[in-house]
Amino acid sequence: MYNISEWDHAFKLDPNKTITNEDLRRICMSGTDAIIVGGTDGVTFENVTDLQERIESYDVRCVLEVSDLEAIAPGFDAYFIPLVLNSGEKKWMIDVQHQAIREYADVINWEDMAAEGYCVLNPEAKVFKKTTCTLPSETDVVAYAQMAEHIFRLPVFYMEYSGTYGNPALVQSVASQLDKTTLVYGGGIRSKSQAQEMAAYADVIVVGDVIYDHLETALQTVEAVKSTKMKDGGPS
Amino acid sequence: MYNISEWDHAFKLDPNKTITNEDLRRICMSGTDAIIVGGTDGVTFENVTDLQERIESYDVRCVLEVSDLEAIAPGFDAYFIPLVLNSGEKKWMIDVQHQAIREYADVINWEDMAAEGYCVLNPEAKVFKKTTCTLPSETDVVAYAQMAEHIFRLPVFYMEYSGTYGNPALVQSVASQLDKTTLVYGGGIRSKSQAQEMAAYADVIVVGDVIYDHLETALQTVEAVKSTKMKDGGPS
Repeated sequence: MYNISEWDHAFKLDPNKTITNEDLRRICMSGTDAIIVGGTDGVTFENVTDLQERIESYDVRCVLEVSDLEAIAPGFDAYFIPLVLNSGEKKWMIDVQHQAIREYADVINWEDMAAEGYCVLNPEAKVFKKTTCTLPSETDVVAYAQMAEHIFRLPVFYMEYSGTYGNPALVQSVASQLDKTTLVYGGGIRSKSQAQEMAAYADVIVVGDVIYDHLETALQTVEAVKSTKMKDGGPS
Repeated sequence: MYNISEWDHAFKLDPNKTITNEDLRRICMSGTDAIIVGGTDGVTFENVTDLQERIESYDVRCVLEVSDLEAIAPGFDAYFIPLVLNSGEKKWMIDVQHQAIREYADVINWEDMAAEGYCVLNPEAKVFKKTTCTLPSETDVVAYAQMAEHIFRLPVFYMEYSGTYGNPALVQSVASQLDKTTLVYGGGIRSKSQAQEMAAYADVIVVGDVIYDHLETALQTVEAVKSTKMKDGGPS
């Protein structure tokens, strides 16, 4: 079981990027709650499987964020299914997921699957363009969060700033609306203090790009997030 | 609370159609589990409010199925929000609902609201055309039901044959996939035996059009459904 409601921190590894064995070892041994394998382009069955096989020797939870039907590989502890709430196309909200379920329903263990309601908030991000998103106003974002919790009853609402640091005040507003749905923040975290700032509001902080640029900083975010959560009264 | 998981039978009244006080009294006193107020076109704040006021003097649960932002009236016991899973447009899956939540979040009592995952299965139906649906294959329908239960965790999956009688074998297949999500069947029920046939598989049978054509038949469906459910081992 993936139990995302109990996580504080996750690393996101892009199967289309290169990471040395030593760096991967340090990420897996960092004390993070999970490794999420996922990316926007160049994700293939081969590079997903390769990364999964390298990670599975470590005692760390490893989740595949499914972005491409062709790149669904076995062996992960859980599978996250992104639904892009602010996409302009129904395709990214239900159709690609519908097709995946048609194809794989017989082998899916539903307990190990979770839908993530994505709100993509950086207009320059590849995923924003790929899924033809429109930039929501702050009121829109809060209403998407309310839909995620009350209409779709999704386990995860994911504020994705992909590559740029987000607006803590908006993360705080969204956090105040969510009770059962876990709030995940991702995007642009490049320092301990940024990780701590977002960890004050979001339930789970996802750290990605900085792994490939400044591994030491990436590793420091684990402790930064965990200590912030402890100050807030223990794991959310 | 609306507790649709405990219902067996509901009548659907169209605010754009005329019903005499005597016929309305008999519908409300019929022993049905709920009256759903909803329609595809000509639904206005005025005719919704008018019908709600006529129903509220009876001791029967009354739910508004929200089809138009302009026609959301207060006073109902619950509000159902349809999401059209097989619509070709994202608009009918999330956008109109998002707009409604933006506008009404402050006054919404989330406990009294439920999202219905609609699968519209009659290509001749007005709602099929209005929401630019495509006709799903049987495999598609089953996968939509699995999404309703496992991805969106919707309280209701609604097989809507709107005006035509559906395929009992498909209703049975879908029923076998659903556990937490309540399966609602609606469309073309014009006899006791049809009501019984669908009640063997669906959790809730909705009876609509026949109210306006053959009231006696409509009234008989209540007992027909309830007795079928009793044979199956009590209320679902």
